[in-house]
Amino acid sequence: MGVVVQNVLRADQSIVDRLAVCGVATVHEAQGRKGLLASYMRPIYPGTRIAASAVTISAPPGDNWMVHVAIEQLRDGDILLLAPTSPCEDGYFGDLLATSAMARGCRGLVIDAGVRDVADLTVMKFPVWSKAIFAQGTVKETLGSVNVPVVCAGALVNPGDVIVADDDGVCVVRREEAADVADKAEARVAAEVGKRKRLAAGELGLDIYDMRGRLTGKGLKYV
Amino acid sequence: MGVVVQNVLRADQSIVDRLAVCGVATVHEAQGRKGLLASYMRPIYPGTRIAASAVTISAPPGDNWMVHVAIEQLRDGDILLLAPTSPCEDGYFGDLLATSAMARGCRGLVIDAGVRDVADLTVMKFPVWSKAIFAQGTVKETLGSVNVPVVCAGALVNPGDVIVADDDGVCVVRREEAADVADKAEARVAAEVGKRKRLAAGELGLDIYDMRGRLTGKGLKYV
Amino acid sequence: MGVVVQNVLRADQSIVDRLAVCGVATVHEAQGRKGLLASYMRPIYPGTRIAASAVTISAPPGDNWMVHVAIEQLRDGDILLLAPTSPCEDGYFGDLLATSAMARGCRGLVIDAGVRDVADLTVMKFPVWSKAIFAQGTVKETLGSVNVPVVCAGALVNPGDVIVADDDGVCVVRREEAADVADKAEARVAAEVGKRKRLAAGELGLDIYDMRGRLTGKGLKYV
Amino acid sequence: MGVVVQNVLRADQSIVDRLAVCGVATVHEAQGRKGLLASYMRPIYPGTRIAASAVTISAPPGDNWMVHVAIEQLRDGDILLLAPTSPCEDGYFGDLLATSAMARGCRGLVIDAGVRDVADLTVMKFPVWSKAIFAQGTVKETLGSVNVPVVCAGALVNPGDVIVADDDGVCVVRREEAADVADKAEARVAAEVGKRKRLAAGELGLDIYDMRGRLTGKGLKYV
Amino acid sequence: MGVVVQNVLRADQSIVDRLAVCGVATVHEAQGRKGLLASYMRPIYPGTRIAASAVTISAPPGDNWMVHVAIEQLRDGDILLLAPTSPCEDGYFGDLLATSAMARGCRGLVIDAGVRDVADLTVMKFPVWSKAIFAQGTVKETLGSVNVPVVCAGALVNPGDVIVADDDGVCVVRREEAADVADKAEARVAAEVGKRKRLAAGELGLDIYDMRGRLTGKGLKYV
Amino acid sequence: MGVVVQNVLRADQSIVDRLAVCGVATVHEAQGRKGLLASYMRPIYPGTRIAASAVTISAPPGDNWMVHVAIEQLRDGDILLLAPTSPCEDGYFGDLLATSAMARGCRGLVIDAGVRDVADLTVMKFPVWSKAIFAQGTVKETLGSVNVPVVCAGALVNPGDVIVADDDGVCVVRREEAADVADKAEARVAAEVGKRKRLAAGELGLDIYDMRGRLTGKGLKYV
Repeated sequence: MGVVVQNVLRADQSIVDRLAVCGVATVHEAQGRKGLLASYMRPIYPGTRIAASAVTISAPPGDNWMVHVAIEQLRDGDILLLAPTSPCEDGYFGDLLATSAMARGCRGLVIDAGVRDVADLTVMKFPVWSKAIFAQGTVKETLGSVNVPVVCAGALVNPGDVIVADDDGVCVVRREEAADVADKAEARVAAEVGKRKRLAAGELGLDIYDMRGRLTGKGLKYV
Repeated sequence: MGVVVQNVLRADQSIVDRLAVCGVATVHEAQGRKGLLASYMRPIYPGTRIAASAVTISAPPGDNWMVHVAIEQLRDGDILLLAPTSPCEDGYFGDLLATSAMARGCRGLVIDAGVRDVADLTVMKFPVWSKAIFAQGTVKETLGSVNVPVVCAGALVNPGDVIVADDDGVCVVRREEAADVADKAEARVAAEVGKRKRLAAGELGLDIYDMRGRLTGKGLKYV
Repeated sequence: MGVVVQNVLRADQSIVDRLAVCGVATVHEAQGRKGLLASYMRPIYPGTRIAASAVTISAPPGDNWMVHVAIEQLRDGDILLLAPTSPCEDGYFGDLLATSAMARGCRGLVIDAGVRDVADLTVMKFPVWSKAIFAQGTVKETLGSVNVPVVCAGALVNPGDVIVADDDGVCVVRREEAADVADKAEARVAAEVGKRKRLAAGELGLDIYDMRGRLTGKGLKYV
Repeated sequence: MGVVVQNVLRADQSIVDRLAVCGVATVHEAQGRKGLLASYMRPIYPGTRIAASAVTISAPPGDNWMVHVAIEQLRDGDILLLAPTSPCEDGYFGDLLATSAMARGCRGLVIDAGVRDVADLTVMKFPVWSKAIFAQGTVKETLGSVNVPVVCAGALVNPGDVIVADDDGVCVVRREEAADVADKAEARVAAEVGKRKRLAAGELGLDIYDMRGRLTGKGLKYV
Repeated sequence: MGVVVQNVLRADQSIVDRLAVCGVATVHEAQGRKGLLASYMRPIYPGTRIAASAVTISAPPGDNWMVHVAIEQLRDGDILLLAPTSPCEDGYFGDLLATSAMARGCRGLVIDAGVRDVADLTVMKFPVWSKAIFAQGTVKETLGSVNVPVVCAGALVNPGDVIVADDDGVCVVRREEAADVADKAEARVAAEVGKRKRLAAGELGLDIYDMRGRLTGKGLKYV
Repeated sequence: MGVVVQNVLRADQSIVDRLAVCGVATVHEAQGRKGLLASYMRPIYPGTRIAASAVTISAPPGDNWMVHVAIEQLRDGDILLLAPTSPCEDGYFGDLLATSAMARGCRGLVIDAGVRDVADLTVMKFPVWSKAIFAQGTVKETLGSVNVPVVCAGALVNPGDVIVADDDGVCVVRREEAADVADKAEARVAAEVGKRKRLAAGELGLDIYDMRGRLTGKGLKYV
């Protein structure tokens, strides 16, 4: 506790942006079905799809002091990601902090705790994925750390990892794997175009994916 | 496990459509306050009210193979209803499966598990009532069954039963009782028109429903 | 149980309205970070910010009889607030009761249980903050009380206390403290204007709030 | 609602007792991995393993009137099984009701709600599997039904079905299948004796069940 | 926040002890089915039944400083009761604090948060009813208050109120009502003796409480 | 997925055993209040305190195939630790697997899912810390991995890390830090002896830890 790591490697911004286009479900599949944060992490308003490099925050329960420290570490294209050191739903973050973060180029917040001023944040178009919406205020008494590895909503996030977030939730991509995952995700998107057309035309997945033989082999019976 | 029942009786489509107009709360009351699925079953977007005949799916946790099998069993005016064999929030269903289901005339999905691609599903106007929104991918390894009775979110659903779903949640109506329930539900709707007018004019339920005597009899005291 | 208190003191309506303008998060801070209801109390639709005087209801689980009794006690500018005597998610309240309550000048409902007909309530612009959306019907068999102190979603609410509610949740302000809290909340709002401007211009909270020295004193290390 | 079915078929008591010996996990496997109640159903004290024929109760939330009605329907070797019509944790059952039930030969209680007087019930050796332990009292105002099919903790239970319960939870076996399931369960128990001996001697499941080839075929890599 | 109330009235110790004998379920019924804390408040070990006067603690999340302050306020026959100002499961209390509290005559702890060292506390016979068992450590940075009214697990508790706790959970009795409740609770206990004997002899509650007529009147049908 | 790492470094067994003596709460404090698994991880029976080196398992939901693979990797003094790739409560593990694991010197199981046969496991003295007790059976169809880093109940665990578990829950200690943490934990235990004696004699923590001045400085008021 009490450490701020200042020089964190980020993925190339163009790669980050390619991941944003693919979205959470596709990126998650493309990297081998890993990296999802828990399903309780929900956006405060629908319709946003972003990717950004994580500035991580490890914070004590009910204490948002480190958010101020973390904002100074933000670079254009980053996202704040906060994990409390024990479960907490307090509202660590509101419209003033969002104003400050946006001034530093921040693209949003992922927080395994609560957020408040959500009506203002919606108007400001500052997207947040959180465990709770809760006005409960916090104190500024105890140190945490910034840009250290954290477990957030069940997923390990290293500083500089790429966070992809949309209406399906939040997914983390290792910085080192981001380019490779972007390639694979775009390949999936491309492959889906043809399948979508065939499915829309009434062809069945049973036939497109050639499942009937294997189903029969496992013993499926039609009665 | 491993059974697909192919010829399932449905209620008459005109009856199904009458139930849709009445909505979940009224249908639930009309059939004697039964048939509701658990309150955690929520629509992925607001503003839809539908009714449809259930094609049921009993699926293993984290395995969506049977969804492909079930889609072949869909008829125009049906809804898919999936219950996992043990609790699971994985995302069994996304935009490709929805494309396929819509091509078969499917009106939506009720799933006691997770769904993904919800931004796409919203654009496609494919309504889903689910336990979770979660991008977690699934496998295709283990058989389940299609069109067998299932317990979904605490309610027993037989294949061919009518599912009514709107912003209040999901209700199941036995196929055999659908016509009778539709009659009773429409009668409730009609009866409410007059009451709504009187209440809007300032009359009290205490008087309209003649409750004062019974309240006093039970011992209610005004101080 | 079985008591209706009829003459309840309310805060001055002008004070109530000033609290509405400030919103939940600010009012909660202004009164010393107290009075919040639990974070599971969510609005049925976004975008409303209100304040109103509480007409409280203590009701048995699954029994909405007392809501009818409470509606008679409503005055213009009031809000209904219902706490069940044991945990319950049943739908105590729907569009007919809302019609009746609106006819009496009621501004909304706060209920530590379920609500139904939410599509209608949304159209009617009758705001509700609830624990659940659930169509489950209730009975009218057992007495409760109206305008007695209740614990609702973890907060003590006295009849006549001011309820402030918006997209962040629900906060209760003691009637006797309402004027003082309104003053303090407005002062906070005013103070935030300047800070927001400085933060938007890129100044850091670390500097505006002069935190660097204290952080160093606690041992924060930059690496 | 409001129906008491009096003449319910039970499985032969000797079959019921054979199922008790096998226990929940084995019986569940023997009947094809079905019939389990939700994992939140826990015994109030450890160390009991029973089987019995279900006398089912469908009861309103917070109303235990029907328990009295159900007790009259008990025969020696039965178990009470209560499902509320909407989720409820109230304490429907305590030591007086247990005294009455034991006098009728009742072997225990399965309740998807609360129980109280658990210290007394422990001394009396009256086993209960419940969702909660909660002293909250109930009323006697609204009818439910006795010996109708119910969904209890996610499982369909018909009156006369066999309930198997132990420290692993609760499983329901259809009355008509009880003899067959008992045969299969006993066969599993017998087969496990040899396996247990080999495993205890240090042989690996990988070898006993001949898994290595299939694992390699799926692509498992040792590094 | 930041207040310690020193001279708190307690109920007479003999009355407190009479309530202990009656237990939670009976006391709760005797005072009109009120005063229960939420069902998630569970004892760390079974078999204890106590009553004691509450020394209340309002504490910030993850900060146990006020426990030390509260211990000085303990008198022989008291119990500590802690409510965090926002939901928290951290382990505020362990064997050292219990040692200190026992030295002051403390009978136990009720905490709407976590406790740790439960193996030691079990050996020491220091009973605790808590929301969680969690080793998570706390800090000593922020003030709370001692002996102020708190809402604990959904129930309002004033300093000096009587807490009754056993395997069924926790109930609060207002200090001013303690004598009256003790009388009523003992009357209930006495009345149950005869009923228990009749029930054990096989008489039915349906007859003892003369329910058959009323059930028929409500429409109960035997088929 | 599909990887088994065979040669994993373990901490020295003597260090592991020293950590066991200190217990979860002390070890957690000694390493700076980190490493705890979530509070929902509970022992299936009370009274055990162990430490062991982790053989980690990443397994699909409802598929226990990898447990068999992992058992082959066990060495004397190890513990199995399983994290499903998406949330699951199925019973991955029972008495046969425990028999096999014990034959390999395994000290227990930590599983962020379900366990079954708990009555047998209790008799066998095979300790398990789990999220659920659930008889639900699993399949053997999909690969996972053994001895890879996993996030288990919110904590990152590397293969070979030391797991400390007792009635307070579960804590992970990095293998590389185990010796240092053991030193610090033992120092804490030693320091507590003197404090416990003084507290038992009636001295207050307020005085022993010299808190009064700082409390006054923060503004604490006695009234």
